[in-house]
This record gives sequence, C-alpha cells and structure tokens, in this order.
Amino acid sequence: WEGEFFPGIPKIKYEGPSTKNPLSFKWYNAEEEILGKKMKDWLRFSVAFWHTFRGTGADPFGAPTKYWPWEDGTNSLNMAKRRMRANFEFISKLGVYFWCFHDRDIAPDGKTLEESNANLDEVVALAKELQTQAKKRVLWGTAQLFVHPRYMHGAATSSELEVYAYAAAQVKKAMEVTHYLGGENYVFWGGREGYQSLLNTDMERELNHLARFLEAAVAYKKKIGFNGTLLIEPKPQEPTKHQYDWDAATSANFLRKYGLTGEFKLNIECNHATLSGHSCHHELETARINGLLGNIDANTGDPQVGWDTDQFLVDIQEATLIMLSVVRNGGLAPGGFNFDAKLRRESIDVEDLFIAHIVGMDTLARGLRNAAKLIENGSLAELVRKRYQSFDTEIGAQIEAGKADFEMLEKKVKEWGEPKVASAKQELAEMILQSVL
Amino acid sequence: WEGEFFPGIPKIKYEGPSTKNPLSFKWYNAEEEILGKKMKDWLRFSVAFWHTFRGTGADPFGAPTKYWPWEDGTNSLNMAKRRMRANFEFISKLGVYFWCFHDRDIAPDGKTLEESNANLDEVVALAKELQTQAKKRVLWGTAQLFVHPRYMHGAATSSELEVYAYAAAQVKKAMEVTHYLGGENYVFWGGREGYQSLLNTDMERELNHLARFLEAAVAYKKKIGFNGTLLIEPKPQEPTKHQYDWDAATSANFLRKYGLTGEFKLNIECNHATLSGHSCHHELETARINGLLGNIDANTGDPQVGWDTDQFLVDIQEATLIMLSVVRNGGLAPGGFNFDAKLRRESIDVEDLFIAHIVGMDTLARGLRNAAKLIENGSLAELVRKRYQSFDTEIGAQIEAGKADFEMLEKKVKEWGEPKVASAKQELAEMILQSVL
Amino acid sequence: WEGEFFPGIPKIKYEGPSTKNPLSFKWYNAEEEILGKKMKDWLRFSVAFWHTFRGTGADPFGAPTKYWPWEDGTNSLNMAKRRMRANFEFISKLGVYFWCFHDRDIAPDGKTLEESNANLDEVVALAKELQTQAKKRVLWGTAQLFVHPRYMHGAATSSELEVYAYAAAQVKKAMEVTHYLGGENYVFWGGREGYQSLLNTDMERELNHLARFLEAAVAYKKKIGFNGTLLIEPKPQEPTKHQYDWDAATSANFLRKYGLTGEFKLNIECNHATLSGHSCHHELETARINGLLGNIDANTGDPQVGWDTDQFLVDIQEATLIMLSVVRNGGLAPGGFNFDAKLRRESIDVEDLFIAHIVGMDTLARGLRNAAKLIENGSLAELVRKRYQSFDTEIGAQIEAGKADFEMLEKKVKEWGEPKVASAKQELAEMILQSVL
Amino acid sequence: WEGEFFPGIPKIKYEGPSTKNPLSFKWYNAEEEILGKKMKDWLRFSVAFWHTFRGTGADPFGAPTKYWPWEDGTNSLNMAKRRMRANFEFISKLGVYFWCFHDRDIAPDGKTLEESNANLDEVVALAKELQTQAKKRVLWGTAQLFVHPRYMHGAATSSELEVYAYAAAQVKKAMEVTHYLGGENYVFWGGREGYQSLLNTDMERELNHLARFLEAAVAYKKKIGFNGTLLIEPKPQEPTKHQYDWDAATSANFLRKYGLTGEFKLNIECNHATLSGHSCHHELETARINGLLGNIDANTGDPQVGWDTDQFLVDIQEATLIMLSVVRNGGLAPGGFNFDAKLRRESIDVEDLFIAHIVGMDTLARGLRNAAKLIENGSLAELVRKRYQSFDTEIGAQIEAGKADFEMLEKKVKEWGEPKVASAKQELAEMILQSVL
Repeated sequence: WEGEFFPGIPKIKYEGPSTKNPLSFKWYNAEEEILGKKMKDWLRFSVAFWHTFRGTGADPFGAPTKYWPWEDGTNSLNMAKRRMRANFEFISKLGVYFWCFHDRDIAPDGKTLEESNANLDEVVALAKELQTQAKKRVLWGTAQLFVHPRYMHGAATSSELEVYAYAAAQVKKAMEVTHYLGGENYVFWGGREGYQSLLNTDMERELNHLARFLEAAVAYKKKIGFNGTLLIEPKPQEPTKHQYDWDAATSANFLRKYGLTGEFKLNIECNHATLSGHSCHHELETARINGLLGNIDANTGDPQVGWDTDQFLVDIQEATLIMLSVVRNGGLAPGGFNFDAKLRRESIDVEDLFIAHIVGMDTLARGLRNAAKLIENGSLAELVRKRYQSFDTEIGAQIEAGKADFEMLEKKVKEWGEPKVASAKQELAEMILQSVL
Repeated sequence: WEGEFFPGIPKIKYEGPSTKNPLSFKWYNAEEEILGKKMKDWLRFSVAFWHTFRGTGADPFGAPTKYWPWEDGTNSLNMAKRRMRANFEFISKLGVYFWCFHDRDIAPDGKTLEESNANLDEVVALAKELQTQAKKRVLWGTAQLFVHPRYMHGAATSSELEVYAYAAAQVKKAMEVTHYLGGENYVFWGGREGYQSLLNTDMERELNHLARFLEAAVAYKKKIGFNGTLLIEPKPQEPTKHQYDWDAATSANFLRKYGLTGEFKLNIECNHATLSGHSCHHELETARINGLLGNIDANTGDPQVGWDTDQFLVDIQEATLIMLSVVRNGGLAPGGFNFDAKLRRESIDVEDLFIAHIVGMDTLARGLRNAAKLIENGSLAELVRKRYQSFDTEIGAQIEAGKADFEMLEKKVKEWGEPKVASAKQELAEMILQSVL
Repeated sequence: WEGEFFPGIPKIKYEGPSTKNPLSFKWYNAEEEILGKKMKDWLRFSVAFWHTFRGTGADPFGAPTKYWPWEDGTNSLNMAKRRMRANFEFISKLGVYFWCFHDRDIAPDGKTLEESNANLDEVVALAKELQTQAKKRVLWGTAQLFVHPRYMHGAATSSELEVYAYAAAQVKKAMEVTHYLGGENYVFWGGREGYQSLLNTDMERELNHLARFLEAAVAYKKKIGFNGTLLIEPKPQEPTKHQYDWDAATSANFLRKYGLTGEFKLNIECNHATLSGHSCHHELETARINGLLGNIDANTGDPQVGWDTDQFLVDIQEATLIMLSVVRNGGLAPGGFNFDAKLRRESIDVEDLFIAHIVGMDTLARGLRNAAKLIENGSLAELVRKRYQSFDTEIGAQIEAGKADFEMLEKKVKEWGEPKVASAKQELAEMILQSVL
Repeated sequence: WEGEFFPGIPKIKYEGPSTKNPLSFKWYNAEEEILGKKMKDWLRFSVAFWHTFRGTGADPFGAPTKYWPWEDGTNSLNMAKRRMRANFEFISKLGVYFWCFHDRDIAPDGKTLEESNANLDEVVALAKELQTQAKKRVLWGTAQLFVHPRYMHGAATSSELEVYAYAAAQVKKAMEVTHYLGGENYVFWGGREGYQSLLNTDMERELNHLARFLEAAVAYKKKIGFNGTLLIEPKPQEPTKHQYDWDAATSANFLRKYGLTGEFKLNIECNHATLSGHSCHHELETARINGLLGNIDANTGDPQVGWDTDQFLVDIQEATLIMLSVVRNGGLAPGGFNFDAKLRRESIDVEDLFIAHIVGMDTLARGLRNAAKLIENGSLAELVRKRYQSFDTEIGAQIEAGKADFEMLEKKVKEWGEPKVASAKQELAEMILQSVL
C-alpha cells in the first residue's frame, strides 16, 4: 500500500456553525480558549483503534460489512503495520492528539505468548516511530482479555488458574508496551469479569481473585516506573449477565473493600451508564464525588435499546451536562475523551469514519461552549446555592461538622415548629439549561 | 368495635401439599426442622403493618378500594388503637411472630411534633400490652420520612435545614419506640433521599448530610442502649428519579466511604433488586459477601413492569435461591422476612389478606425445603467446587494469598502453554436446580 | 375569591431568544408564519385542566404538596366554579386557545349519576360563558373512567356488567358536554382497560366488550350530531400491567379487527411512546402511516424511569422530530398539542405553572422552527430520496404495483449478479439534523 | 468421519422424576396420553439446526468457543453433509421428530445464486434420504436473509431494489426446498426488516415493499402446491433498533392492513415476547385470540438482560402457562415447538447439547402435565367464569350482540344505582396455579 490512505480527505478544519461542509468542524476550534483553557486541552480527544481500524460491522446476526480499501483480508503482521500507518494518517487529518488500543487490536495473536509478544513488539516499534513523527500520544492502552476463547469464564475471575496466569502475563506486557509508547493511562475493562449464572459461580472467590490481580498490576506498574493512571471501566453487563464493575458506585465499593482507592480511577462510558440505569451525567458526578473521575469513553446508546450500541454522541444537552462535570473536575488530564464509538454497521464509506468523528467532536465542543455559557450566566449555580442556603448558617455548619446530635435537633424543632419548604424550581432550572443550548 | 375482626377465619394450620383449603399452609410447618433448625426460626416472618392495615388500594390513577369493616373512615387515635388490635388478631391467626411498622402508620400525625409523639406513645403503650398478651415481637420499626409534604426534597438530604432537624427528631422518637417495644432491628429506607434532577441538586452536599445523619443515629442508638441492628434498605428509584441507596453495592460504597460499615447492615427487598437491574439472588449474595445481609423484605415485582408492585412472592425457583442465600448466611436473625407486600388493588375481600400472606409464606417455606434438598443432594455444590479446583493447589494458594506477581505468573504461562478450559455446565446446573423444585 | 388568580403574572409575550425573562416566550411567536402557516395554527396548544388545576403533587409515597391560594380545601361546586375561572385566566395569560378536561376534573362526583350530571351541567354552563368571553375552545373532552373504585376492573372491559353500563352512561354525558362546549375531539384513554394478571382474565371477552362499547359511542356521536374526531390514546401499562391500547400498532390492530378504523384516530403521548419501547417519533410516524394521527399529548418521560412522569418536553431534538411528523401530516387540526404534563411534585410556586408551560411551548416552537429549517435546507430529504432511488425505476414500479413475481425476480438476479449496496449514511443524517438545532 | 457422532450418548429414555441420570427424561414420556393426546403430539418438538449445529459460541465480544469433534474447520459441502448426518443422529437419539433450518445453515453460500442453489440441492438430497431412513420431518424451513452483508439494510425492506430481488429469489428456493422435504410450515423472521434510524428511512415505503414481497410469496406457494402454513415471527428489535414485526399485535396489524390475515399465522418466540415488554403467555394469548397462533419458538430470556439470550426454557410456571395456551388452541399442529435456543457460550461439552435439550423438553412436558392438572382441577376456570357471570344474562347478551345503546344503558344505571364490584381474587388465582406446580 503506497501513498495516502484517505486521499480524498483533507485535514479537517474549523469553519464555524454556518458551513455546509460535512468534512469540517462547526464547533471544535482546537486552539480557541474557553474558560481559560484551550478547547483541545479540555477535550483531549482520542481515537479508539479497535472501532475505527478493527471494527468489521459484524453483529450477532450478521457478517462483516466493512472492507476498507487498505485491508487485504488477512490478520498478518504486514497488515497490522499498514493499519497503524492508516491510524496515524487518520488522527493527523482529524486533528486528534491521542489514540487508544488493545494489545490484540494492533498486532496479531501468535500461537504462543512469546510469539504474540514478538508480534506486538514489532508493531509497537513502528507505532513509536510514527507517533514521534506525527507528534501524537497514547491516551491509554489495555489488554484484550475477552475475545479469545480461553477467556470465556473471565480473565482475572476465570475459574481456571492457568487463565488467570495468562491474563497476568498479557497485562504485564500491555503495561510495558503502554509505558514504552508514553501512554498516560492504562485501562481495565472487565468484559467477562462477571457471571452468566450465579448457580455455577463462586462470586466471592472470583472477586477476591480480581482484587489480587489488580494488586499485582499496581505492584508491577510501580516496578517498571509507569506513572500513568490505572483506570477501571464500569459496565453493567454484556457479554456477561452481570459484570462485577457494574457502575461507578459498584466499582468504588470494590476498590474501597480491597483498599485500592488510591491506585485507581474510573473510565466512565456514557453508553455503559445508561445500560446500568443511570444518566451519563449521574455516573460522571458519582465518579467525581468519589474522587475517581479519570477518563470518559465518549459515546452514547439508544434509549430504547438494551445493549451497547456505542454510537457517536450527538445529543447537545447530554454533551453540555458531560462538560459541566468535566469543568467541575478541573478537566480530565491525564485522562481525556476516547471515542469508544463505532460507525453503524450500514455506514460503509471511508468518509463515514471522518463524518462520525467530526460530529462526535463537534457535539462535545458545543457542549463545552454551552457549559461555559451556563457557568458565565451563573443563574443555575445561583439557583442551586439558594436551595441549600439554610445550611450556610451556624447550625448548618454544626450539622456538617457532625456536631448536631438528635437531642439538640429535636429541641430546635420544638422551637421552630413546622418547617417551611421552598419550590425546587426544576422547570426553571430546565429553562435555564435550555437557554444555553 | 367489639369482638373478632376476622370472625370467619380460623387459626391457619399446616395441612400439607394435598389440601384444597386455601386457608391453610401447604408447605409452612412452623415447628418442623429443616437443616437443623425449625422452619419458623429460618423464616422469622413478619407482617408489615402499613400494607396490611394502612394500604388503601389507591394508586396514581385511582382512589382507595379497600374499606375494611373495622375502619370508620377516620384517622383518629381510637381508630389507630382498633387497627392495632386487628393487627394482633391477624398475626396470631396467621401464626406469625413478628410485625413491622412506621411511626406514622400506627398513630396519627399531630399538628406539632409534640402532639404526634403523644399520639404515638398512646398507641405504642397499647401495642406493648397486646404484644405481651399475644407473645409477639417487633422485627423492626422505622420512621416514615416521605409521605408528609415537608419531606418533598428528602429528609436527611433535604435542601432545608429545618427538615433535616425534623427528620432527626422523628427518627429519635421512632428509635425510642422501637426500643421500648423490644424491636430487634431499626430500618432506614430513604424513599426521598435522592434527586429528581441533577440540575438543581448538590449531590455531594446531600450525601454528606446523609452520612452525618446516620452517624447521629448510631450515637443515639448507643446512648439509649438499643442493641438492635440498624438496616439500610436499598432501592434504585421511585418516588425519586435516583435514590442514593440504589442497590446493595451502592449502599455498601456509601457505608465504606463514611466509615459506617460496622454499624449498619442491609435490608434487601426483592422488588427493589429487580428494579435496579439485578436478580434478588444477586442482591442477597452481594450483601452477604460484603458482610451486610441483615433482613429480607419478601416480595416480588412483575418482570415487565417498571415500578414497585410489591407483590407477594409466588415464584418457587426464586424462593429456592433466596433460601439458599439465607442458609449460606446462617439465617437472618436478628433479621427476618418482612412481608413488604400488598394485596392487588382489586383484591378487596378480607380473606384476601390471609390468602396473600399464606401463599407468600408457603412459597418461602417451599423454597426452604427445596434449598435443603439441593444442599443434601450436593451435586450443585460439587459442580461449583470442581469448576474452581485449579485454585485448590499450591499456586492457587499463592495467588489467593497475594503472593503471585506478574513475572512469576508469566514464567508459568511460558511453561504451561495454552490453558485448558472446561465447560461451565450451566444447563446441567439448571437441570439440578429444577430437579429439587 | 375576588379579582385575579395570578396577580403577579402578566400576559406572556414573545421576547425572542435573548431575553432573560422567564415569563416570556423565547421561540413561540403565535402569529409568526412558518412554512406557510401561523405558529399557533401548527401548534394548537391546549392546557390540560387535570394536571394544572387538579394536580395535587401526591404520588404513591407522598401526600399532596400543592395548595394553590385559590383552593379552599373542598371539592365543592363553588370551588369547581372558582377553578374554572382560574383556568380561563391562566390560558388567557398564557396565550393558549384550547383546553382539555375529564368530566370529573371540572365538577364533583355526586352520590348518584343524576347528581354528578347536574353538577357537571352547572360547571359546564359557566365554562361555556367564560369561554365565549375569552374566545377559547375545548380541544377535547373525555370521561374519567379510572379513579373511582367502581372502575377497578376497567370500565368497558370490567368483569361487572353494571360497571360497563355506568361507563356507558358517563361517556354519553361527557360526549354531550364536549359537544355543547364546541369540543373539536373526544378522547378515550383506557387507563384500566387491560389486566393485572392473565390468570383471572378473559382477555378475548374483554376485548369484545371494548369493541361493543366503542361502536355504541360512535352511534351516539352520530345521533347527537357531534362532528368531533374520536381519539384513542395508547399507553402500554400503568396502572394496569397490560393496557389493551398498548401502542399505536396495537391500537390500529384493534380498530382494524373490529372494523372501527374509519371512526377513530389516535392521540399519541410521548411518554407513553417511550414506556412502550418506542421513540415518540416512531409512534407518530406509525400513527401517520396508518392514517391515524389525530392529536399529540405533548410531554416526555425520563429515559431511565419505568413509569409515566408526564414531564414538560424540553428536548429540542425530540421536539424537532415531532414537528417533522406533524408537518408531514399537514398539521394536526382538528387535533392539537395538549399539555398532558405536570409540574414536578416539588415545584410549588404559582409561577412554576407558567414557567413549565412556557418552556413546553417554546420547546415545540423551537422544534417547529428547526423542522422548517430542515425542510428548507432539503439535504436530509435528498439523502432519503437517494437511498431508495433504485425503486424509482421501471422494475421498481412493477414491484410496488405488486406485479413482480418471484420467478421474474429470480431471473433478474441471475442477470444482475451480486447486488451493490450503498452506505446508509446515518451519521451524516445525524450531522444534518444537528446542524438545524 | 466414520461411525457415530455421539458415541457415548445412548438413546434418551423416560426414567421419571426420581432418576439422577442427566441423560434421561424426567417428565417427557412421548407416548403417554395427557388430556386425550400423546405428549409427543401436543409438543411436536423440533431441533433448530442453526443453534445446535452452526452455533459457534461467538458473541459481540468473543470468538467461537465450540469446536465439535466432527467439525473440520471448513464450510465445505462435505462438511455440510457430515453435519446433516450428525443432525439426524442427534434428533434420533433425543427422540425428537422434527427439525428446522435456514437455507444457509445447511449448505454453504456459493459465489453466485446458481452455485448456492446447487449446494443447497446437494445437501437437501442427502437430508431427504436421511430423513426417510430416520422417519423424521421438517417442522419448518426458512431463508437466512440477515447474515450476508447484502442484507445490511433489510431484505424485502432494503433500500436497494437488487437486494429485494435477491431475497425473492432466495425465498423462492427455500420454499421449494422446504416443500421437497415435506416441511409443514415456512417461516419469515424479518431480522433486518426494520430500521436503525428513522432519519434515513422511508418507513411507509419499506412496509409497502414488505407487503408486496409477502403477497408474492403467497402466490408462489400456491403455484408450487406447497400447503404448509406461512408463519411470521415477531421480534421487537435486535439487530435493528426497530423490527417491523415488533410483537404479535403489530404483526397482526400489518397483516390486516395489507389483507394478508388469511394467509399467515405467527410463530411466537418467548424471548422475543419478553424483549417486547410482554410475558410469553400474553403473546401466545394475543396470537390465539387473533386466530394467529401457529408455532412456538421455545426458549426464554433473562429478565434482567436487554438482548436475545435464546436460553433453554427452565421455568416451570412459565411452561405451565405456555401449555395452557396451547391446550386452549387445541394444540399447535401443523406447528410445534422449535427449540430456537442455544447452549451458553461457556458450555462446550458435546453432552451439553443433549442436557440442554432434555431440560427444555422436560420443562415443557412438566408444563403440559401441570396444565392438565389445572384444567382437571377446574378451580381456576371456575374463578374466571364467576368473575364475568354478570354478562351471562339477558342484558349481557344484548351488550355482547351489539344491541345495547348508551341511552338504554344510562336508563339501567339510573334504575340500578351504584354498581357492586367483586374482588378480583388474583392472589387466590396465583395460589391455585402454584398448587399444580
């Protein structure tokens, strides 16, 4: 494969909201400052190698639909390298600084661990070279511990000791490789760390194994001097009936139980949030409040669909709320926004890859602009402040300091009589939010 | 009201599975021993005063349908006392040892806290007398912190300080009363501790308030010498969009975050479990594994309905799995099974109250018998033991002791080659379970 | 009650998107022409008497929270008349032309049917007078056949013949009254026409009864010369486990089965749509394609909540898609947009009633403006036209005329070889939609 | 491949409920008479070739896990024939009389339609021979119109005319082949007949195409003298966001709209029922009442999972209700029970194929036995009869004959006064049901 992979596609530029050009940004203007920081620094976009370069369009009822021109139909090392070059052309044209990968996305599985590792080393060497040329970085790397049949019962929570060991070896290598590429984070998504049926599962033992595994990962990270953040990515289910990292609170409970809170943060995915019965905003706020918001997998699901559709986010209101959480968190760095999102199976033009990412980036950029307007406007913050102002008092301070016992409070009630209660003004809050959209 | 409340209803007796008499037990034989304990001691059934004596059949689209003959249409103190007598006749005829209540179920709200407390004292004095006569006990008491409009924004998490204080005063009294009646537990169900919209909510501040409130409750419990268990009852939503005690794991995370794990256990309700996207069995196991399984609210929902239907459990398989968790937990005492379940709105005969409780008790009794068969049969436990036997080895022990690092494990993988993986035998496990139903 | 009901509230005016005044329209400009019609004629807004004047804020776990200043705590005839005056002041200040009602919302239930009818007549006479003064109209009337305990098993589908008859008498009167007030439509929402359990239900017999009932309604409508449209309002469940008018397609099947399609149209409610697993847009398109789109109950639900929340619509994208269907339908007249939406329980200020309706009206107005932009832009329509252009051919015409048999098509396939398939361009379609938001 | 495919597996025999042998029937005794018919004639079990012989265990996150010993890793004609022999050994040992297939399951796709048809002919010739030897029959055949990428936009509803034609040619051949094998039914499951987004879809035009397609199928069926029943299989979604045959009522509406009700029946799948928000029993009763119950795809889903899990049914209560519908329908013939169910991905032993089918067959057999007990017991039918007895009167007959107009009914109401309403006795109904489980 010689020359460009995307010959008809120019470098994507910011043209503003009035342009009709699909291959341009309407809202994302990388260098523009919003709330004291450049848009690119708030957003830290990353392309997911797996969806963009390994997504085939296959689904449980259908064969692959995507035959990109640069693919030769093999999973060879040569093909892996060609894809890596396509990746760097893609992110360069798109104007994205980061990429993310699983070990097995970027290099073919070998017959043995040694062979797989050798394959990986060869592709990673090329990636390092390309990323230096292109001035790009790895947002995070991870190990793919769910596709291979050996992981059918899980990886760290497999009922088979040899599988646990294999997963350890694979994570060890993936951490080394991420470190080598200057990755800023390392992610654990426990796709099969869960169960299909409680009948044949020893949940307690499996959870203990998972904790031991993550402790060993922390130890190894320190040993090799990798300073990136370790991230757990919650998801409620699929492929399993129950995944142990169900949602942010469940993951936080696990980390606390096993004393791991200082070592991990969370990678919140919006589609996983809604599958777990929460809004994405809720999951972000829960992670933030628990001191655990580390990264966002920027995608969305279909509100009437019960599985992970990994669509590119297009909802402006949702994006505004996401960015509100991010601003409250002071940004996400060293995390960012990884587009864990894929083209619809029926979108088979090369340009669709660009269109989808552009609309995803623009949606979040528009969300950031709206969040800034909301913050600058101030009415919503003021509405919230006022709601709780009865606690901004001496007795409020006592309560918040844990110094107000039941007897004292009962005495006060007798003094005060029936409490006055103000309107929650939810519709007004919604009106204010809408005014910035 | 003179004489019997349920004149046509005899004391309910065990008649065995072949009886056609709806007013008899087919499976629940209180004194019969199963797995070394009497059925009544495994099951520790309790009647919920609110559903049985205060449930009106009203729903969001309909007026009350239940006009029990003993009701006079008022919420007077006299009526409250009459109901209390009906309660003791009911549980005596049903052969249940425990009852549960909210403060405001059993005595009318007064114009002031003082008046409400005085009303409560008067009814509680009668209850104490009746329960001594009838040799009954309170399984748990609780404060109703969600019906009165003052609690519209929550109780401990209200945006209004005076409401926080009022809730404190109410819990103080409810704890005193529960203690006075010899209650074995005290429950916190945070019906409105949550939010309707994140837009107008300071979630972090509200959660801090909730923690302060529970700490004060612990302090007061100790002060008055109440030794009952404090229980948190998870529910994902309804009436709020999000309740802070979403599910067992979320509640556990909250308790751990605020250092409250030693002071609280969980009261798992089956219908709440399924509303949160989990099976009841999952929630019980999660609570158990976290050392938090304290009580069960025995009911069930409709799998196709998105709100709390609080139906009496009739599913034998579900009951078998519930009892399996209870047996693994060594029983529930000092907790038990509270029938937080209500007659369908359209069931308006007095005898329906008995029929519903009988079928609920028989279902759990049958679940217990099945769980015992399953345990005695042993095949399922053996299937599970075998699945994990690769960890019952020297290296397994090392892993489980946290002594197996990634480098050692990688070395082993290179020695061992591709892992062997056995069938999970889920269908066989299901066949074994079905064989005891 | 003398003087104004809403003394602090001015007539709501259009001030445009940049205003900060919550009590003004930002997008709804009644007389402005969009796509050749005035906004008020596309939108035909109606206030729902029940939510706005009879909504108390009670929910399954809570008592009423709303004590409007004009309420005296009774359900007297006088109070009913006072509320009716408040209604006309409200819709006049809001600038809405229509209102909707249930018989039992506007006048108190009497001890007998005769007394209820007399009450109704008295209030309706006043309403007629007020509506002539205010130049307002009834969008639709309906009978409340679900609150009273007599309807616990349904109305037309009750297992009790006397209840069927009672419902008939009530609908008869409600149709007369709607006719008298110049109502443009009459609605059937079968809240309890369904079942709680199939075990005790003869579904076939109940459905036959429902058909007989609706046939009798058609006959009576003709007899009294009422020319309004009869509308069925689908809802999947709540309060029943299953409502017979589950969704648009289910209702269409019922109408077709019993030969009623010519006599009824559908009133699509957005929150009911999502509860049935469909987007609102889907239900509108399904109704439209079946020739049944008659009216819209303009509200929305919470995508993570499993019951009817009846919130005011604030989602701009959803509103745009709704208006796209309405424009395709050539408008809704004689139907319109009824705000079957209620204040959150915690919104207790009188001004909240206005704020909520304003944001609902503005959202739909903004949707209309966006739909117009989308239509004028033309790119989306062109994208769709192109997708199907292979059918705009001679063979396409044959297929669509039902003249292409399998043998002919097989012959063609052998001629043509493997079909070419184009990209579905979903992401591009989403980008185009977003560009008008 | 020489000799037996399942050498260790004997012919499965009925051994009764007390056996411990997993490879035996506990409840299914083929020749035993229940309610006047042999069990095998009520149940008419069929094995689904695709799940049992082509299911690989792949899922959206994982590679195949099943490598049956007889598979050689190819999709050759020889392999296809070998599998067909395995199929007949399997159903013979299992004691099932029927099998079902898609065209592309049993023979490999060729490069052209002609080649695919030739492959199919060759395998079908063998199947015919084997089925004569084994005395087996095809319950139904169908065409696989969803896996190949050409069908990405649907088959009969594709936006591409050439795909419509290709689907027609494929169905033509599949109907011929089903006819040749003496198939008793032919099924249409419209996996991709639906949409992913309404934005890029002309739903009305697609539905018209679907109707034209089915009309042509009816014409061709008659032309070739195929007398089997044509069946539509409803499913709400997956792989599409919306499938046009959403549920039984939606499918019935489609058939009625296009005048196709006389030509089609429905194939109800239990897992599809629950995904559409209904119980399986509801879908069966809806199909039955509409005169459309033709076949059952016997499987089940997980109540907490939002996609099709196609598990073997193990729920005894659900099976009892299914069989109640089947008995009311007078059986299913010429339809039957097809096991559209698959092993869990983690079940990889050959014997698991038998165990899963045995537990599925036993569950339905147990359901049949329970349904018979329920019918013989009679209490539930009596409870239902009594609920509606007010309609078994002269006025009831008038109403049911459509002769009771609103005026007459109003007169009666005035005569009768407030209706009496009886308890719905749902809990009693549940107790009666449980007594036969």
